[in-house]
Amino acid sequence: MNNFVYENPTKIIFGQGQISKISREIPAGSRVLITYGGGSVKKTGVLDEVKAALEGYDIVEFGGIEPNPTYETMMKAIEMVHSQKIDYLLAVGGGSVIDGTKFVAVGARYDGDPWEIMIRRGKGINEALPLGVVLTLPAAGSESNPRAVISRKSMNAKISLYSHAVFPRFAVLDPTKTYTLPIKQISNGVIDAFMHVFEQYMTCQMEARLQDRFAEGILHTLIELGPVALQEPENYDVRANLMLCATMALNGLIAAGVPQDWSTHMVGHELTALYGMEHASTLAALAPGMLTVLKDKKHAKLLQYGERIWGLTEGSEDERIDQAIAKTKAFFETMNLKTNLSDHGLTRDNIPEILDSLRAHDMVRLGEDQDVTPEVVRQALELSF
Amino acid sequence: MNNFVYENPTKIIFGQGQISKISREIPAGSRVLITYGGGSVKKTGVLDEVKAALEGYDIVEFGGIEPNPTYETMMKAIEMVHSQKIDYLLAVGGGSVIDGTKFVAVGARYDGDPWEIMIRRGKGINEALPLGVVLTLPAAGSESNPRAVISRKSMNAKISLYSHAVFPRFAVLDPTKTYTLPIKQISNGVIDAFMHVFEQYMTCQMEARLQDRFAEGILHTLIELGPVALQEPENYDVRANLMLCATMALNGLIAAGVPQDWSTHMVGHELTALYGMEHASTLAALAPGMLTVLKDKKHAKLLQYGERIWGLTEGSEDERIDQAIAKTKAFFETMNLKTNLSDHGLTRDNIPEILDSLRAHDMVRLGEDQDVTPEVVRQALELSF
Repeated sequence: MNNFVYENPTKIIFGQGQISKISREIPAGSRVLITYGGGSVKKTGVLDEVKAALEGYDIVEFGGIEPNPTYETMMKAIEMVHSQKIDYLLAVGGGSVIDGTKFVAVGARYDGDPWEIMIRRGKGINEALPLGVVLTLPAAGSESNPRAVISRKSMNAKISLYSHAVFPRFAVLDPTKTYTLPIKQISNGVIDAFMHVFEQYMTCQMEARLQDRFAEGILHTLIELGPVALQEPENYDVRANLMLCATMALNGLIAAGVPQDWSTHMVGHELTALYGMEHASTLAALAPGMLTVLKDKKHAKLLQYGERIWGLTEGSEDERIDQAIAKTKAFFETMNLKTNLSDHGLTRDNIPEILDSLRAHDMVRLGEDQDVTPEVVRQALELSF
Repeated sequence: MNNFVYENPTKIIFGQGQISKISREIPAGSRVLITYGGGSVKKTGVLDEVKAALEGYDIVEFGGIEPNPTYETMMKAIEMVHSQKIDYLLAVGGGSVIDGTKFVAVGARYDGDPWEIMIRRGKGINEALPLGVVLTLPAAGSESNPRAVISRKSMNAKISLYSHAVFPRFAVLDPTKTYTLPIKQISNGVIDAFMHVFEQYMTCQMEARLQDRFAEGILHTLIELGPVALQEPENYDVRANLMLCATMALNGLIAAGVPQDWSTHMVGHELTALYGMEHASTLAALAPGMLTVLKDKKHAKLLQYGERIWGLTEGSEDERIDQAIAKTKAFFETMNLKTNLSDHGLTRDNIPEILDSLRAHDMVRLGEDQDVTPEVVRQALELSF
């Protein structure tokens, strides 16, 4: 097991009816900027519920944060923080709204062009406005971690920042708020959480047994309940477990003391930046090819995964590994995700520009051992058509 | 799944060599009271290592905290805090040292007799001195939770307090510091952690699937590695996993959203107070009888436990449940724990005074549904001889 520091100060307030408690968490007299996305929180009534819970506070709204939130949009929110003298941020939405709001939190306290924070990946950034979350879309895990991914349209760039300062102070997770989500967002969320676990779990075998068990616990739960969630949108316990899975998948718990891969995510970010593909779609289309190319390197963990998650104990080791990858692909398809880049209108002719884009963003040594070079990615992409 | 609030602010600093980092966590200029137990931290050199890491701080020492720390002893430490104008506490040891030091943290800031804090079980107590931990004995989980158990000799009382104010600010977990522990303390620690998980897991079946998987992950790891730890005291990865298990067993993670039992612990505390039995010994001797008496109530979870942890899939449900309890008992014995109260010099004649003691401490409605009455405990005790 590797040495590690684990600290997660976010207070998770979980369950039906909990939005009513947010005023206990935000200092009285705060001027609160409520941020949200395309307006579904208005239709579902969540925004009204939040505003009712904040009676007595000065409230300003900033809507219209897009999926894959952009520097361009969030700079307008930073201007609003300054002009309206905001001192607390409340993100109401999913990962994109939260990530965008994290950028606002640090950007509003930064002396200079906030894009510099992204270029530094958040390094050395210790000042931020306080931030709370009302989560409506379980997927990204951003409600309880120190990361944010921000895109800049003018540069075709999608990069992430890491700063302890952007941990949300609290996050309300009310599973009933997911009942009205389009089925597609549930599918995407389950696959996103699944792949977050995979990037931390599917590396070398290195005797972090408890972390492996926790990771497998999340995978088991996603596999058992993901398909049920598509059929039974108002099954409280199903939605509650999936919501908790998505948070636990990326709150640092299963990352403690283990190496991490993240190469599939990094290549996926390029596909989103270049072609506008949804995040989960990139992961589902890339992961089987990446696993196949890296199967010798990940041999022991793939065998463990196959046995513990899919009960694969028959056949040669190579056969069991191939079956484990096939089962993973089949699970993505059960969740209505496409596992082939040609399903997204791409062809092998796109491969050179994807690799160029990785090189342009200095993503040339990916994976837990920094040996996933553009050439390795090329081999994986070849298998993704 | 039940509604819950989960918050754990303790910073876990994990791994070999990490004691050297504690000065980063304690404000410069602090007057630090280092607390410890019977002196093993002197023999092993841990105390010197801690003092070297705190060069430049004003340091005062308070040793001699006993297993099952007492009000009587800890009141002397509270006097020392006042007389020496201490502003930071650093507990170096295991659960008893940490628990005792937590009582000092709140007691030193309490206006009145600190025993009142225990009578209130910590309710309404929001002020405490800051507290850090260097853990040498993985077992109790106190290094990362808001609880402390304190005994008062003059009253034969052993009761617990709960206050957010006593969460340690940081805890250093260096697995190499467990190498020199007597084997008996490793045995006790594994069983203590196991039973912490059990009290939170072995209740009704209520669709908290992820929490179940996490709990089972800890149980699996303890069962796999506990016996190895007895044979290979310097196996770093074994000790690291067990240390992490003990922390995760009682840091609130697996308690979130589920009912909890704790009846075995409550009865065990009476046995410690009355007869001086070690904590883990009480749990190992009581648990099989308690499970047997409550097996109808815990039917579904016992079946799940039997299948997932022990691979029990053959035979009738009743047979599988009996096997699961037998496997648990056998595991305790593999870890060198005795599973019969007569092994500790008790007889059935002691039962009435144990029940009287429960009644005297108002422990008459135990368990996840408050239906474990003294009569139920009597039945369980009858099976423990």
